Amino acid sequence: MIPRYSRPEMTAIWEPATKFRIWYEIEAHACDAQAELGVIPKENAEAVWKAKDVEFDVARIDEIEAVTKHDVIAFLTHLAEHIGSEDARFVHQGMTSSDVLDTTLNVQLVRAADILIADMDRVLAALKDRAHEHKDTVRIGRSHGIHAEPTTMGLTFARFYAEMDRGRARLVNAREEIATGAISGAVGTFANIDPFVEEHVCAQLGLKPEPISTQVIPRDRHAMFFATLGVIASSIENIATEIRHMQRTEVLEAEEFFSKGQKGSSAMPHKRNPVLTENLTGLARLVRMSVVPAMENVTLWHERDISHSSVERAIGPDTTVTLDFALNRLAGVIEKLVIYPDNMLANMNKFRGLVMSQRVLLALTQAGVSREDAYRLVQRNAMKVWEEGKDFKTELLGDDDVLAALSAEEIEEKFDLGYHTKHVDTIFARVFGTSA
Amino acid sequence: MIPRYSRPEMTAIWEPATKFRIWYEIEAHACDAQAELGVIPKENAEAVWKAKDVEFDVARIDEIEAVTKHDVIAFLTHLAEHIGSEDARFVHQGMTSSDVLDTTLNVQLVRAADILIADMDRVLAALKDRAHEHKDTVRIGRSHGIHAEPTTMGLTFARFYAEMDRGRARLVNAREEIATGAISGAVGTFANIDPFVEEHVCAQLGLKPEPISTQVIPRDRHAMFFATLGVIASSIENIATEIRHMQRTEVLEAEEFFSKGQKGSSAMPHKRNPVLTENLTGLARLVRMSVVPAMENVTLWHERDISHSSVERAIGPDTTVTLDFALNRLAGVIEKLVIYPDNMLANMNKFRGLVMSQRVLLALTQAGVSREDAYRLVQRNAMKVWEEGKDFKTELLGDDDVLAALSAEEIEEKFDLGYHTKHVDTIFARVFGTSA
Amino acid sequence: MIPRYSRPEMTAIWEPATKFRIWYEIEAHACDAQAELGVIPKENAEAVWKAKDVEFDVARIDEIEAVTKHDVIAFLTHLAEHIGSEDARFVHQGMTSSDVLDTTLNVQLVRAADILIADMDRVLAALKDRAHEHKDTVRIGRSHGIHAEPTTMGLTFARFYAEMDRGRARLVNAREEIATGAISGAVGTFANIDPFVEEHVCAQLGLKPEPISTQVIPRDRHAMFFATLGVIASSIENIATEIRHMQRTEVLEAEEFFSKGQKGSSAMPHKRNPVLTENLTGLARLVRMSVVPAMENVTLWHERDISHSSVERAIGPDTTVTLDFALNRLAGVIEKLVIYPDNMLANMNKFRGLVMSQRVLLALTQAGVSREDAYRLVQRNAMKVWEEGKDFKTELLGDDDVLAALSAEEIEEKFDLGYHTKHVDTIFARVFGTSA
Amino acid sequence: MIPRYSRPEMTAIWEPATKFRIWYEIEAHACDAQAELGVIPKENAEAVWKAKDVEFDVARIDEIEAVTKHDVIAFLTHLAEHIGSEDARFVHQGMTSSDVLDTTLNVQLVRAADILIADMDRVLAALKDRAHEHKDTVRIGRSHGIHAEPTTMGLTFARFYAEMDRGRARLVNAREEIATGAISGAVGTFANIDPFVEEHVCAQLGLKPEPISTQVIPRDRHAMFFATLGVIASSIENIATEIRHMQRTEVLEAEEFFSKGQKGSSAMPHKRNPVLTENLTGLARLVRMSVVPAMENVTLWHERDISHSSVERAIGPDTTVTLDFALNRLAGVIEKLVIYPDNMLANMNKFRGLVMSQRVLLALTQAGVSREDAYRLVQRNAMKVWEEGKDFKTELLGDDDVLAALSAEEIEEKFDLGYHTKHVDTIFARVFGTSA
Repeated sequence: MIPRYSRPEMTAIWEPATKFRIWYEIEAHACDAQAELGVIPKENAEAVWKAKDVEFDVARIDEIEAVTKHDVIAFLTHLAEHIGSEDARFVHQGMTSSDVLDTTLNVQLVRAADILIADMDRVLAALKDRAHEHKDTVRIGRSHGIHAEPTTMGLTFARFYAEMDRGRARLVNAREEIATGAISGAVGTFANIDPFVEEHVCAQLGLKPEPISTQVIPRDRHAMFFATLGVIASSIENIATEIRHMQRTEVLEAEEFFSKGQKGSSAMPHKRNPVLTENLTGLARLVRMSVVPAMENVTLWHERDISHSSVERAIGPDTTVTLDFALNRLAGVIEKLVIYPDNMLANMNKFRGLVMSQRVLLALTQAGVSREDAYRLVQRNAMKVWEEGKDFKTELLGDDDVLAALSAEEIEEKFDLGYHTKHVDTIFARVFGTSA
Repeated sequence: MIPRYSRPEMTAIWEPATKFRIWYEIEAHACDAQAELGVIPKENAEAVWKAKDVEFDVARIDEIEAVTKHDVIAFLTHLAEHIGSEDARFVHQGMTSSDVLDTTLNVQLVRAADILIADMDRVLAALKDRAHEHKDTVRIGRSHGIHAEPTTMGLTFARFYAEMDRGRARLVNAREEIATGAISGAVGTFANIDPFVEEHVCAQLGLKPEPISTQVIPRDRHAMFFATLGVIASSIENIATEIRHMQRTEVLEAEEFFSKGQKGSSAMPHKRNPVLTENLTGLARLVRMSVVPAMENVTLWHERDISHSSVERAIGPDTTVTLDFALNRLAGVIEKLVIYPDNMLANMNKFRGLVMSQRVLLALTQAGVSREDAYRLVQRNAMKVWEEGKDFKTELLGDDDVLAALSAEEIEEKFDLGYHTKHVDTIFARVFGTSA
Repeated sequence: MIPRYSRPEMTAIWEPATKFRIWYEIEAHACDAQAELGVIPKENAEAVWKAKDVEFDVARIDEIEAVTKHDVIAFLTHLAEHIGSEDARFVHQGMTSSDVLDTTLNVQLVRAADILIADMDRVLAALKDRAHEHKDTVRIGRSHGIHAEPTTMGLTFARFYAEMDRGRARLVNAREEIATGAISGAVGTFANIDPFVEEHVCAQLGLKPEPISTQVIPRDRHAMFFATLGVIASSIENIATEIRHMQRTEVLEAEEFFSKGQKGSSAMPHKRNPVLTENLTGLARLVRMSVVPAMENVTLWHERDISHSSVERAIGPDTTVTLDFALNRLAGVIEKLVIYPDNMLANMNKFRGLVMSQRVLLALTQAGVSREDAYRLVQRNAMKVWEEGKDFKTELLGDDDVLAALSAEEIEEKFDLGYHTKHVDTIFARVFGTSA
Repeated sequence: MIPRYSRPEMTAIWEPATKFRIWYEIEAHACDAQAELGVIPKENAEAVWKAKDVEFDVARIDEIEAVTKHDVIAFLTHLAEHIGSEDARFVHQGMTSSDVLDTTLNVQLVRAADILIADMDRVLAALKDRAHEHKDTVRIGRSHGIHAEPTTMGLTFARFYAEMDRGRARLVNAREEIATGAISGAVGTFANIDPFVEEHVCAQLGLKPEPISTQVIPRDRHAMFFATLGVIASSIENIATEIRHMQRTEVLEAEEFFSKGQKGSSAMPHKRNPVLTENLTGLARLVRMSVVPAMENVTLWHERDISHSSVERAIGPDTTVTLDFALNRLAGVIEKLVIYPDNMLANMNKFRGLVMSQRVLLALTQAGVSREDAYRLVQRNAMKVWEEGKDFKTELLGDDDVLAALSAEEIEEKFDLGYHTKHVDTIFARVFGTSA
């Protein structure tokens, strides 16, 4: 977790104070359930809630842990300092540390997922706005980095919207998958605690009981969670790369926003670097690198080993914090992206109409010219454009053999951009449910 | 794709003949749609179906490709050899190669997913059978590889069932996500082809139209697909590792099946190696290694580049073939796994009752003994077991201080295995919907 | 291993016939050593060499393996068919299968490394040639895709040369590391075979004896080997990306070679796609994906398990074959890359001298103008270039305030490209040992 | 970087104060070189050293950066506060930020490597000690987790020593590779600064000048560095896994050290968990996960983009800190590992001599018994051991058919452990240079 790539809302989830708060809630709800079962006295269970508004003292807990060498015991000891040791002795009865730790991790991941979903909503809103704003802003479509056929800037935003929207749906799934809790004892048999406790605690925390756990919640759930974040990060890289390409000096179809006052921007007006999207490219790698270790974590020896634990201590916070930051940075970039429609047109015309050569070729053959002849006709005019800097349409209009097959009007029509944008509304309706 | 780790049903999906068959279907359905739109004559569209039962000649297509240097053109040329060049000239009209190639890849991935889902069903059936067979077969639960509390072999199978069932649900999702087709032209604008063609072809092939494509179908779908396979592979490794542990000489709670006639098995009866599950551990790595490149494939330059293509040529077949093989190998291992309940009991009793020391400790405190005293009582008897090879229960029954707090009956009860298995039915009901 | 991305010299290493040939050599040399030790009769050892020129019948060996279910035994049985079972019975004495298999794998990897080193030499030769050819071809250097300061095309080639040369040195190291053999028995103790046999066989095969093996050669060696290939692949991607950028329509500073006759190239002369370098980008991912599984292979249970084996069956051939193909494709691309110096100059002048604004700014301050004033002076002229399309130098020469600080000659000097290329020879001398 | 998995010596390298200190040294040495070249006045260069013993105020620099939005400028401004702005204005002349940042990163990685090399020396010393201590401690060698032939605990330590020693050599190489600096300007042409400055600064910092850089030092060096750490981490996992296996309840050939006072250890003496080595298994994954992003970082656009930067901000500290911690934890585990030779013998004898069945089989055939008969003889005695719990040697000695081929003495000899340990000294001499 690198401070400069962090947002406080997400880092807060991973702070010790938050962890202890969740521990407390699990223990308190468990006491309620145990009281309802008659395992512990009702008044003791109620007494635990006396600490409801207490802000636990992290330093004090650390101090106790330094002696007890056990984090959960340290917490319980500290809790006793608040609610009295008499009431405290019923807390945690029949439970194992993992019941608390594993359920807490999932609460944290669920909360992280909720923030990430909101982040994606911000990205989606930005993409949708910019898509509609530039629905008809024509630019050249490129395959292999080479001009192909016209498309529109709106379609570019729309496809990123559709991609991010898929990512959002996947994240909702992953959140659902990780929203389980387990209070099932040392090897998951509920030998020392009734399944009702698990059910009650999970219901209170917005989780489902893990249908079958060992000492821990199975790690395929976590693997799926981090794999999903990795796919989303890859989509961020995809969008970031598009913007980096648009901003490069020779293309200059868009630029990341720069405030007028930014030093250097006016003495070297050409030197505005797409540093945010480059940064997003790197952040995507950081998110993605958690995927393989999360998958390696799935294999545990028998009813558990702790090989997964150190991995999760790192990738739990780091990956969610980085992705949260990246999504917000991306949203900001999209919201404020400066777009240059004129440059888009200028780029498209770099080779003076040559991008239309395929349409002309097709029109000639459809007009009855043989493939070979059509090719020859297009070629000789194309070459004048390529080698002598002529304008393609002008050349065609001056070529009698071409005019023998196509009228001037028909030739003009081949250069009509409306041909390429006629289905934009259809596509927008597919993506946004409406083309408005 | 390694022959020894391949099954013919899956490899068939990736053979050139299959690919050409799908290409043909896409082209023929597209002709139907074009005819319906009035773009091409109905009779020409119908004529394409003359090749319906033709087995395309892969060698001949390769021969043509060697000249044309273009795979789709080579195929179309060969198709013309079957249906006549007059009818053939309407085929592929308005389409680009990627329309065919990308839609075909997704058809292949969908078919692969269908096989994999069936594979998982086989694994699930085996796990369910063995879970019920060994629902009450007690064995020691282990955390950190160290004896903890009793559990049952049935619970082990049941948790693998639950894990694989989650994997199956994820795979169904991934299959759904990849089941799209695109016939949208060079940059995805439908400039040269009506969206109706895409809709028609997709409906015929069991796909949904990709809402918005560029020259290609967006690769976040494929990344999610391979990520899902990676998670399933990790679950395979998890199960395989459990079996490898059970088979190691000192544990010997289970063995992969060996036929009586297998050479060497009786002159060295101890030397039966878990080679299938070790192999599965390696295969899991092979499946998993496709995840990161699939994610790196998401970023394409503008409306497409072909950096993804070579990756998919490798991981498309290799990963699905390997996972298909692994799932079937796993199913076979589970179905025929030889289980040794006696050894399970013997292992559990390796330290003559010591695994129950925690229950005794708890019982003493609940009987009013102070924590310190209870600990001391348990410790002095535990040490006789650990150091002198005594039996824990016997020692407790002979310790007057213990008997002062717990009756002989109560001590006996602490060693009752039923205490640990009392919720097995509850858990089975959660996992299988019934405990029967 | 994808046929279209394979070269026969490398695939030959991984063919069964090659494997059996190496097995044979190991067995025959081992017999020599055993005879020298007096363990087996000299004449029997000599008799093994009767098969020296035999081409082993792979189909026949497979046939035998189908019965014996053991590959090494199948081979030995087939060998006996050539040299007679009397002489054959001394073959393999005291050895285990892994002695043969593991040593063979390393022989294959060493041979693969030798080819890869030769491949890199071809790449290096091409880079060196093109570097010298374009030592003084000025182009704009770019940071963040944005014009920065001039550099030369030769420096671009030279830095790729230096990078590949480092890769070559790493590969030589990795080859050295993998060049070990082991004939040490079931758990590596030499219980059944004298270490002299290992020493003799290794010496004959150009290997060093593995100082300490278990049943297998330790897999950290292989991990290092594949990690090294992964770094080299990443350098290929680096070079490929540079070329893809250079070829994009708006930049067009270079193009992958295209033969005049290539269809489509002249009717759509702008549409020449950098498909080879895009392909290299994908191939780099395929090479890199073997790194993590190779590292996961390092951990084996006790004296060996076979989890590594399936991984190596895949990545051994696939990774070396893919990298071999990629290096040769890269060499071809570099050798024939079409370079457009005129476009390089045109690109550099896209903003009519603005790239020199920083030099002018510095010169003004060095001439005693305050930072603020210098900045203002540069800014007002830069803005005329940026917004009105003026030429920067012309504007400066017409700005009295600038001329008050700098003479016209001094201003001219700031636009001298020689300023930027003055150390090219120095750098070439560092990279190539000479600037000639 | 997780505090609980960090050691202060390594984290100190990555603290802001250290970074600023290195920046300062680079700038000061660069001034010396510039003064020697006559570019700046000698007295100004000397004046920079006035800050030699200053502890830079990180908070103050952050404060300035909040205004200037540029880290290097913020530092230079703060430096001016110490040495006076008159002297300070010559600092950094002709340099770009990357010259400072990139050279600093390599200084940090070199220092990190030095600590890691020392860490490995500690691990090596521990392995060497334990290897010699247990050179002759016989234990069963296992393949596939199944008993194979005897080996010694010393050989286990010795092979880990050899593996770590290879890792150390690789790390020394990687350190050498990363020990370069660059002060070459915005695109690496030395346009604004003489190469002598780079040479001087590098010499002072113990680096070599990067032969050819762009704006940055090429990232293949860093990829190789992190790949090397990944291989070392995999070796840590290998050792950790061996120990985890040895400690599992059924094996119990070794245990991680536990202090007598550790709570719970004596009331549940069987429950001592190998938590340190399990933790090492997870830490290995964390180190390894940096390898792929480091390789993805190799590709930069043209003369640089900053996509690598965020990755390095994370993996630079995280990976070196984690590996440093892991190596030290590993050293501690090895140094204090509690080894149980008696349990090793007991495990070896679990099947009462059956592990020797192969030797007996071989002896019978060498004594002239046909393979089939020999097999039958071994089998019928082995089965009595396997099924009836008899002792193998006793059975053989009572089998007249066996005795007809082998004398009682010869049979006894087959059970002699010395047969398996006779080459231990040879192997030790190979590994340690001496068997003493």
